[in-house]
Amino acid sequence: MMKFLPAELIQKKRDGKELSAEEIKFFISGVLNGEVADYQATAFMMATFFQGMTLNETCALTQAMTQSGEQHEFKDPSLCLVDKHSTGGVGDKVSIILAPLAAACGLHVPMMAGRGLGFSGGTLDKLESIPGFNILLSREKFEEIVSKVGCAIIGQSEKIAPADRKLYALRDVTATIECHPLIAASILSKKLAEGTRALVLDVKVGNGAFMKTKTSAQALAKLITQVGKRMGLLIRAVLTDMNQPLGFAAGNTLEVLESIEVLTNAKLDLSAFKNLPERSSADLKTLTIHLVAEMLLLAKKVKSLNDGRKLAHQKIEDHSALKVFHEWISAQGGNLNDFSKIESLPLAPKKITWTADRGGYLNLIQTENIGRLLIELGAGRKRAEDQVDHGVGLVFHKKLGAKIKKGDPLVTVFTKPRADLKDLEQYFKSSISISSSKAPVPKLIHQVI
Amino acid sequence: MMKFLPAELIQKKRDGKELSAEEIKFFISGVLNGEVADYQATAFMMATFFQGMTLNETCALTQAMTQSGEQHEFKDPSLCLVDKHSTGGVGDKVSIILAPLAAACGLHVPMMAGRGLGFSGGTLDKLESIPGFNILLSREKFEEIVSKVGCAIIGQSEKIAPADRKLYALRDVTATIECHPLIAASILSKKLAEGTRALVLDVKVGNGAFMKTKTSAQALAKLITQVGKRMGLLIRAVLTDMNQPLGFAAGNTLEVLESIEVLTNAKLDLSAFKNLPERSSADLKTLTIHLVAEMLLLAKKVKSLNDGRKLAHQKIEDHSALKVFHEWISAQGGNLNDFSKIESLPLAPKKITWTADRGGYLNLIQTENIGRLLIELGAGRKRAEDQVDHGVGLVFHKKLGAKIKKGDPLVTVFTKPRADLKDLEQYFKSSISISSSKAPVPKLIHQVI
Repeated sequence: MMKFLPAELIQKKRDGKELSAEEIKFFISGVLNGEVADYQATAFMMATFFQGMTLNETCALTQAMTQSGEQHEFKDPSLCLVDKHSTGGVGDKVSIILAPLAAACGLHVPMMAGRGLGFSGGTLDKLESIPGFNILLSREKFEEIVSKVGCAIIGQSEKIAPADRKLYALRDVTATIECHPLIAASILSKKLAEGTRALVLDVKVGNGAFMKTKTSAQALAKLITQVGKRMGLLIRAVLTDMNQPLGFAAGNTLEVLESIEVLTNAKLDLSAFKNLPERSSADLKTLTIHLVAEMLLLAKKVKSLNDGRKLAHQKIEDHSALKVFHEWISAQGGNLNDFSKIESLPLAPKKITWTADRGGYLNLIQTENIGRLLIELGAGRKRAEDQVDHGVGLVFHKKLGAKIKKGDPLVTVFTKPRADLKDLEQYFKSSISISSSKAPVPKLIHQVI
Repeated sequence: MMKFLPAELIQKKRDGKELSAEEIKFFISGVLNGEVADYQATAFMMATFFQGMTLNETCALTQAMTQSGEQHEFKDPSLCLVDKHSTGGVGDKVSIILAPLAAACGLHVPMMAGRGLGFSGGTLDKLESIPGFNILLSREKFEEIVSKVGCAIIGQSEKIAPADRKLYALRDVTATIECHPLIAASILSKKLAEGTRALVLDVKVGNGAFMKTKTSAQALAKLITQVGKRMGLLIRAVLTDMNQPLGFAAGNTLEVLESIEVLTNAKLDLSAFKNLPERSSADLKTLTIHLVAEMLLLAKKVKSLNDGRKLAHQKIEDHSALKVFHEWISAQGGNLNDFSKIESLPLAPKKITWTADRGGYLNLIQTENIGRLLIELGAGRKRAEDQVDHGVGLVFHKKLGAKIKKGDPLVTVFTKPRADLKDLEQYFKSSISISSSKAPVPKLIHQVI
């Protein structure tokens, strides 16, 4: 005899009543043990999409999902564990720079990252551009690297929050991704089970983010920080702009190269970048340093955000972050210590530069479309089971607000030898807007919550 | 390659956009052929619960469900085919009287009925109280009996509207039963596939019906008649009261006995009813005659509702409806021609009469609770796979508005020999209200739409 009837719990949610922690726990266990059928789980999530959840319900859901699998605590209590999570965007390679930088500043970053799906890229795909890099470490090895090197980035083990894994897959095919309490529980359950003690959340907002409006991003950030605090996490959320690709590169290998360039603090003399027009990582660097500063402040390693920024700047300038980067990549099986290794990362052989059809100011980039263009090139996935092509991607030569002359290079496409790009060029050009008067450029960092 | 992506259709519905007929047809075919997973179907139905459907969408859904299986037309074009459908209630045995009565009036009633589920009883369960009665006829046999006798009542073949069958089972366990467009499409698709040409709909409203309020019942009735007309049906809906069990009997055999009593137009001298206090089928008879009159008017067999009522009355009084009843039951394998056969229908051996604890007026019967009490006795089902006990049930001695003295018999329970009824008596008494001042009694027939 079941303790609760799944249909009655669905009805309760449908009718806008509050479920008890016990009811939510039953439902989530049921999703894994079969007492709740998949078709009941999806009806419940659609009802939640419409009715939302109270803070109590969201906490109960987070807890139930956290407890659905293995829960880890780091053995070494002296570690200063701080993680970062981004809600996803285009060209967002922050983690690859931030993890070794934060480590160089004295933090320990135990990161579980995801793969790209939809228009948003995934840190794991980017790291797998590096030959030999292993994203599947045993728990012991993971803890050892975090402890010794200061950071590690791995894939989510199937044993961590399996209920989230299952529900996320169901949400993905039933139009219930965009639901704040479900997003909050999904993010936090994994972080809590992984054993982090503090978390800085990068909530992307804009036309290349899942949250298109500031109102919606604020609400999500507020919810996640509230729930996180109730679950005992030190947590802070930063609303940052995603109305253009971050930095200059989008595509897996290209983003690793840009990350190395930021950590090197100088233009890399790469053959792949020879004869390419201008490129800028300024926004990427500013954002990464800001997020590291937030992490340092949260962990009480610095007294102010400014001190945190200064420390991070210094760790880039003196190349100690770059040093941690190389140690970390080596510890996970990759090797980029020689410049020749960096030079030989997989890159598509054909380069085509698309130029401006008119002069004016670059006022709009429909960034979600850029994500879709990357998928068409092969850099991302249409379905979870698709393989990505690490070598393809885009290098942007202009950022929002740039003054452009007709014929100026806008973007360089790295693609397969015989790819026909006519349609994609058309699609790209219909996804940007160049106008005679300059529109305001969105701030990079909107708000800290 | 699929023509549409199920997730995108779910999202469209979720966001309140109108789906095209082609999209709905794809979705419904997909539910049967596997292109749409069950967990996607339920998310879609929950989204529909919240966003509703336009008239166009509801028509497309009805059509897609009708076309999901076999579609029949009666071979004999001279038949005057009129069906009746009730949205379900407690003690609603109208079909058993109405089918032969309408046939005696010259109509042909091709009825597909359902089983009881939840607090509402089912015509098939009632008819199966009759030994030998066969609810599974071939299409040929069904048409032959409808043609020769004038009526037949069978179960829904698996080949009729299989998409409805599947979706209904999913709705039942995902709290999406109460959704007007889904109800409308479910009812009409079966009727259309069955080949009827006209339909009178009995929309029950009250505390023993699925529609608790007149507003909701009116909206449903209006929707079904609109959709039915668009699909080429002659259709009329009647809003009738379900704030008390209809007639005096509730429970399978007992309801068959009450039906025979109405058709006989005299109290039956049954041993089971010996020494029982008063009982009245007045409301049941009035309602059945009204519905038959609506059917006659719809089929243009009479010029006015009054003429229809007169004709139906006459066919009861001269026993021609009773004669059709016996022919019909025999044609489907049952036999009630001898009084001894009626006497020997299965009835539980133990009779207990519950009496009033106080005097006053019977102002309220929580009719849904009566339905639940019947399930506890074994007359109904908790789960679709449960067996019903045909012999158990209730005979009511008082109707709403009755003046009652303390100790007056209220209801007689027919139950298993050793059943302990203490809790049930308590439950029954807490489900009725006897007060010193008389409350208005709801009208039997609220509205014709």
